[in-house]
Amino acid sequence: MCLGAQVVGLGTGSTAFFAVERVGALLKSGELTDIVAIPTSIRTKEQAESLGIPLVTLDTHSKLDVAIDGADTVDANCNLVKGGGGALFREKIVEASADKFIVIVDASKMSPIGPHFPVPIEILPFCHEHTMRCLEAIPEFKGAKAVLRMGSSANNKNDGDAVAISDNNCYLVDMQCTEPLTDVETLAESIIKVVGVVEHGLFCGMADAVIIAGKDGITVQECKE
Amino acid sequence: MCLGAQVVGLGTGSTAFFAVERVGALLKSGELTDIVAIPTSIRTKEQAESLGIPLVTLDTHSKLDVAIDGADTVDANCNLVKGGGGALFREKIVEASADKFIVIVDASKMSPIGPHFPVPIEILPFCHEHTMRCLEAIPEFKGAKAVLRMGSSANNKNDGDAVAISDNNCYLVDMQCTEPLTDVETLAESIIKVVGVVEHGLFCGMADAVIIAGKDGITVQECKE
Repeated sequence: MCLGAQVVGLGTGSTAFFAVERVGALLKSGELTDIVAIPTSIRTKEQAESLGIPLVTLDTHSKLDVAIDGADTVDANCNLVKGGGGALFREKIVEASADKFIVIVDASKMSPIGPHFPVPIEILPFCHEHTMRCLEAIPEFKGAKAVLRMGSSANNKNDGDAVAISDNNCYLVDMQCTEPLTDVETLAESIIKVVGVVEHGLFCGMADAVIIAGKDGITVQECKE
Repeated sequence: MCLGAQVVGLGTGSTAFFAVERVGALLKSGELTDIVAIPTSIRTKEQAESLGIPLVTLDTHSKLDVAIDGADTVDANCNLVKGGGGALFREKIVEASADKFIVIVDASKMSPIGPHFPVPIEILPFCHEHTMRCLEAIPEFKGAKAVLRMGSSANNKNDGDAVAISDNNCYLVDMQCTEPLTDVETLAESIIKVVGVVEHGLFCGMADAVIIAGKDGITVQECKE
């Protein structure tokens, strides 16, 4: 691992899976050299290790050259909803440290934020019912309902009797919206100020480009000037 | 516990200790009746139980009539630094839900925020060194140094070899400042936006009144019009 190596953030989820596979294949073939990678979940770490991708952490490498990940929703302004897979915190801490953040989705993910996919929020277990009420009271959520995620792990939604636990030993709340959320930046600021919130799945102003796979091929939406 | 009971938040620390004792004594003598209380730490919970103070939680009582607590620093605008005792999250979630928040300090705590007492910040353990660098990079911190709190528990500062663990199983960072922090509200907004931060010890715009014990007796500083 030389000092000049490019640092690449590897996303989590069904779409990012293929990007990680591709990085591994390009390294193996020699088309890609001199990179180190930071995974955004334990799953992605295991996948990358199995492919022989050299890994580092944010503790040793605070700046990434590029991060690649999927998303659950992408709106027309490149705001994202992420966290359906439960890895929103590690995704956000890694992708917020990347010079370029590239999002890969299929066309079905392109939608106004809100009704298309719940907004996940990671909260502390202590007094979580109170925190959920505080979240429902945020005006920009327009009456969304806070639903505590259940399941054997944070990655499996509503498939178990126990509360799902995140990688950080926290709870996950899915905000189920019936109306499109229009003022997403203000909403994001309101969410993070709620005492008890650890992090949320709104990624505003973070993506540099969105690569969209549709029926008629690939299109690229540039997000920043 | 009737529906009309006043809900009282009980603080944590050497000053709040005496307030809790007094609430217990007034209940016992019958001068105070019809209250329930929400403690801000496990220590305060145990103290209140030993005094026979009836306890509830934020999960059942989302609104408090009044909360009483100490502080590590109070500036001229009633901004507080809290969290020297490690209970800043539970203190903030309780006190942010109170109609009236009364702070009790001795005159030595009255000071500009910064050099007088470090600003404690609770962060997730994952990639905490990265998070600490992000905190040091906040311009409003004016070059403050982030020091990870060590000790056998979050309440005991720097008295052990292991990292101190908060009530939320998180780490505590003490931001050691050499200069007075002037724009405390902006600083608070910058801190909470750092990915990895759970909560911080700046309590801005929360206190309704500060009761100050000095050499010449008690003075009361009203904080809101």
